[in-house]
Amino acid sequence: MTSSKIEILAKAAECFMEQGFHATSIDDVARRLGSTKGRIYHHYASKTDLFFEVHREGMARLFAAVEPACAVDGDALTVLRAMLRAHARAMLDNHTFENVVAQGVQLHRFGLGPTTDPQRRTLSELIASRDAFEGLFKRQAAAARQAGLLAELDISIAVKTMLGALQWSLFWYRPEADRSPEARDVLAEQMVTTIIEGLRPRAMG
Amino acid sequence: MTSSKIEILAKAAECFMEQGFHATSIDDVARRLGSTKGRIYHHYASKTDLFFEVHREGMARLFAAVEPACAVDGDALTVLRAMLRAHARAMLDNHTFENVVAQGVQLHRFGLGPTTDPQRRTLSELIASRDAFEGLFKRQAAAARQAGLLAELDISIAVKTMLGALQWSLFWYRPEADRSPEARDVLAEQMVTTIIEGLRPRAMG
Repeated sequence: MTSSKIEILAKAAECFMEQGFHATSIDDVARRLGSTKGRIYHHYASKTDLFFEVHREGMARLFAAVEPACAVDGDALTVLRAMLRAHARAMLDNHTFENVVAQGVQLHRFGLGPTTDPQRRTLSELIASRDAFEGLFKRQAAAARQAGLLAELDISIAVKTMLGALQWSLFWYRPEADRSPEARDVLAEQMVTTIIEGLRPRAMG
Repeated sequence: MTSSKIEILAKAAECFMEQGFHATSIDDVARRLGSTKGRIYHHYASKTDLFFEVHREGMARLFAAVEPACAVDGDALTVLRAMLRAHARAMLDNHTFENVVAQGVQLHRFGLGPTTDPQRRTLSELIASRDAFEGLFKRQAAAARQAGLLAELDISIAVKTMLGALQWSLFWYRPEADRSPEARDVLAEQMVTTIIEGLRPRAMG
């Protein structure tokens, strides 16, 4: 993707995050870009297309972060931990884009987003990609359970709970507070440590 | 609160959850109630007041669920577990109201909600009540850490991570799927088990 398109998507993501899909106009995005609407329409036919591209980029960034972690050396729990760590960091790094992904999920749920058939198909594809993402974690959690490294949990609920712990950062994380990658590393590590070993009584073993 | 007011709030919560604060009108709520706008205006002066009352009721239900758990017998981790369990169940029981609470948090963050001074003060009070709620868990987690029952975590991040794990159910839970209190009990237990002991390698002790 060209840097011009990335810049448009980043500003659009800010507008969608702050105002929501319905209250955002192409005018708002152009104003934030300090450019003309023409520059946006050159790449995106409509506000809905722009929203989809932000959503698609948000999902692509999550996959790009987590897929390498799927291939680290170690037992099944070590791999799962690496995946959660990568996901936590990606949620912080791409706070604005991932806010829009979450919004897309809700619009889809309540049937309030796009209105044409092709748009509905696109949104369904984006939601399917989210399910595939969750699937990476489900397979890994199942492997860890199989290896006796995980409690006997309902894998689907356990994965939703783990991912939710990281994704809720959409509600409290403030990107302006720690701009350095190192600060985000520390935060991601604290979140994952909480999930992995924070709460089990030490004496229970 | 009278049952008539509770009914208005419940329908308003549905509208706000599905359409968002800005796209919802008093007309929408009246239509869903199958009643006149007059019935709503008899109790609430404006859409914003109605939104605040839903938010307030959502917070009240969380406190009502978790406060008794703060007083259970047991060590500091047992109490923390009971509190998380009560919170998980309350999030499922009050899915619609808690969706609106989360929306209020975002409106406050982006300064997009109420516009008058008294309204802004009310929203700030509601946000402060949310901080107090998180404070219950922070104090309990600190007590558990003090007692050596919790890893050496940053308490603030750990609590946000734990609560997020439960609160993310706003994005995936479907109340229509299990209407019975027993089914919600099972689900709440699975979520809390994931947080408390799901992921720590058994051999590590």
